Amino acid sequence: MKLLENVVVLDLTQAYSGPFCTMHLADHGATVIKVERPGVGDQSRTWGPFKNGYSAYYAFLNRNKKGLSLNIATEKGQAVLRELVRKADVLCENFRVGTLEKYGLGYEELKKINPALIYASISGYGLEGPLASRPAYDIVAQAMSGLMSITGYADAPPVKVGPSVGDNYTGAYLALGVSMALYRRGVSGEGCRIDVAMVDTLFSMLENAVVTYTVKDVDPQRMGNIDPGIAPFDSFEGGDGMFVMGVGTDKMWKALCDLMGRPELYADPRYDSNEKRCENYLPDLKEAVQAWTRTRQLDELETLIVGAVIPFGRIQSVGQAAEHPQMRLRGMVQDITDPVIGPMRVPGIPIKVHGCSDAIEAPAPRIGEHTDELLAGFGYDAASISALRAEGVI
Amino acid sequence: MKLLENVVVLDLTQAYSGPFCTMHLADHGATVIKVERPGVGDQSRTWGPFKNGYSAYYAFLNRNKKGLSLNIATEKGQAVLRELVRKADVLCENFRVGTLEKYGLGYEELKKINPALIYASISGYGLEGPLASRPAYDIVAQAMSGLMSITGYADAPPVKVGPSVGDNYTGAYLALGVSMALYRRGVSGEGCRIDVAMVDTLFSMLENAVVTYTVKDVDPQRMGNIDPGIAPFDSFEGGDGMFVMGVGTDKMWKALCDLMGRPELYADPRYDSNEKRCENYLPDLKEAVQAWTRTRQLDELETLIVGAVIPFGRIQSVGQAAEHPQMRLRGMVQDITDPVIGPMRVPGIPIKVHGCSDAIEAPAPRIGEHTDELLAGFGYDAASISALRAEGVI
Repeated sequence: MKLLENVVVLDLTQAYSGPFCTMHLADHGATVIKVERPGVGDQSRTWGPFKNGYSAYYAFLNRNKKGLSLNIATEKGQAVLRELVRKADVLCENFRVGTLEKYGLGYEELKKINPALIYASISGYGLEGPLASRPAYDIVAQAMSGLMSITGYADAPPVKVGPSVGDNYTGAYLALGVSMALYRRGVSGEGCRIDVAMVDTLFSMLENAVVTYTVKDVDPQRMGNIDPGIAPFDSFEGGDGMFVMGVGTDKMWKALCDLMGRPELYADPRYDSNEKRCENYLPDLKEAVQAWTRTRQLDELETLIVGAVIPFGRIQSVGQAAEHPQMRLRGMVQDITDPVIGPMRVPGIPIKVHGCSDAIEAPAPRIGEHTDELLAGFGYDAASISALRAEGVI
Repeated sequence: MKLLENVVVLDLTQAYSGPFCTMHLADHGATVIKVERPGVGDQSRTWGPFKNGYSAYYAFLNRNKKGLSLNIATEKGQAVLRELVRKADVLCENFRVGTLEKYGLGYEELKKINPALIYASISGYGLEGPLASRPAYDIVAQAMSGLMSITGYADAPPVKVGPSVGDNYTGAYLALGVSMALYRRGVSGEGCRIDVAMVDTLFSMLENAVVTYTVKDVDPQRMGNIDPGIAPFDSFEGGDGMFVMGVGTDKMWKALCDLMGRPELYADPRYDSNEKRCENYLPDLKEAVQAWTRTRQLDELETLIVGAVIPFGRIQSVGQAAEHPQMRLRGMVQDITDPVIGPMRVPGIPIKVHGCSDAIEAPAPRIGEHTDELLAGFGYDAASISALRAEGVI
């Protein structure tokens, strides 16, 4: 039995942030009803990569969901949505702030219909305040939150995190808010409104950077891959690629000196404590380490460094990560068959529940693929469904 | 009423990943009992920044939690923990894989005592497989997952995300797993084991990178701040600092050309569709945009670009983000009073529940600060508590 079995989610989200939230809910057994405008659909259907003319982006992100076509910009569509709300547990949305209120589908309206509804919203900056109405792309949230300013090398401009972490992390927080609210509702019977913002999310994960500013009055700077408090702790060049390691203790440092055949470095007064290694790390200590690592292949370095119980990792490409035996064993890449793309491999489910299958059960829906069965389940008869279709509402 | 009120969490985590999970649970009303070894405590107590000799890192991350001192490396300490498990809802841990089993505190043992227990574990690579026993620092997970390989500029080496996203994102997933399991337990009465791994977590947030590899057989590369499918969509130099913008549509592109006083660029056959703008972005189109942005201050650029409804963001420092009126209004920086540090400002709570206060209610505990009242609540009398203290168990 999956964790969210029997939970019904009306999914009004599109693009990446909201669908990432509802992907987690669907992966854990919720019935996620993906509501898309007839003939148009989620904007991510136009995002690459493509195969057989179909978006692999849409395909991986919307697996395990059901497709319902519905035009909520029409009055009849809004009436249908209000009917669905009566029997739904959760509504997720990431429209521009104010859009659903304009459609008569705001939280205050819908909670009159279903007081147990959990109404969950993602926005760029939050639902109120001077920036609430501004559109925000992921890169804007990465910039505004301070995250970009502390990512990158010290001697280069700020750089964003490659994938859209402002979108997906905020989606994960929305899933967390929804799940906590589902627990609460089981106790109290009441729903609530959950509100997460992309800039808030990224600001909340800056680790010690915020207190470094508020307590020490120091605005944190970029430091590349170096840890300011531990050395050597960085990326390094091996003979055939890059890797990282973190020499976290004096014992590890001694082990590394022995591996390098440089026992004198361990006694060297420039390096005989972690504090001094940090002070004297650049350029000499890093260079001393790399003089050794550059002469070795990654396979040998891995054997030696892991053998010395020093945390080590190759800087894997995405493909190397996908093919790594550990990732395969964890089911982090799974085979599915999409009706248009055909057999394809997609990212797996990262939250493991022992005793529960973590297999992906269904491909992403075509627009409205399950409209008839879903509406029938909500009490619509065949004639009503035909009428709605004839009018272009579904 | 907070979402997780009445939920009791035994928090055996330390450092950053696990405590980030339990911070979210505590922020939403759970009673999080932070178990620390007497006289030693969480390793993050030794992590800067410091004020009055006390760790501001520990202080912000462990707010809203209760302190219980207990040495679970002793048999008597293990017996106490087993007593607590009888009345607890959740146990969170991020020990090296196998450590708690060695103490007789593994899931299989504890579920015999309390079948409704939710037992939640964070590890670097997961609980089984060839890498399960390896130690992993955050940087190792960033490297192994593929995330580093696609973060940074195309002409520079891979770079890690500044803050420890492998730790905190995995903590957020654990909180999500725990919350879904709490919902399920409300339905079925049964607990379960949740297992999340740092490398899995980061692999799950690579967006389209995984399907680009699996469907197109292309291993994704670093692209700095550029979006491969939209142009101009990048970071740019203003006269007094950097900013980002995303020109997502032809309409926005026309608006930008007008702002720049370069209407001829809109008709230029090199730039008259998004596809062509992407093809011809570097170096000429970017340079054309920057020739204009460099002559303007950020205040003016913000007014003009936001006025044209083009998504825009300053690349704020952490301090600038903390002081931004929108962040203040959202309560993303809060004043608390730590008993040692004194008044301090810490990151706020990013998941907003309308109608619920998002104020932080208590500072982080000293080691064992609430031991007596907590043990009394679990049924220990004063004499037993004194005996445990005399023996160094608590």
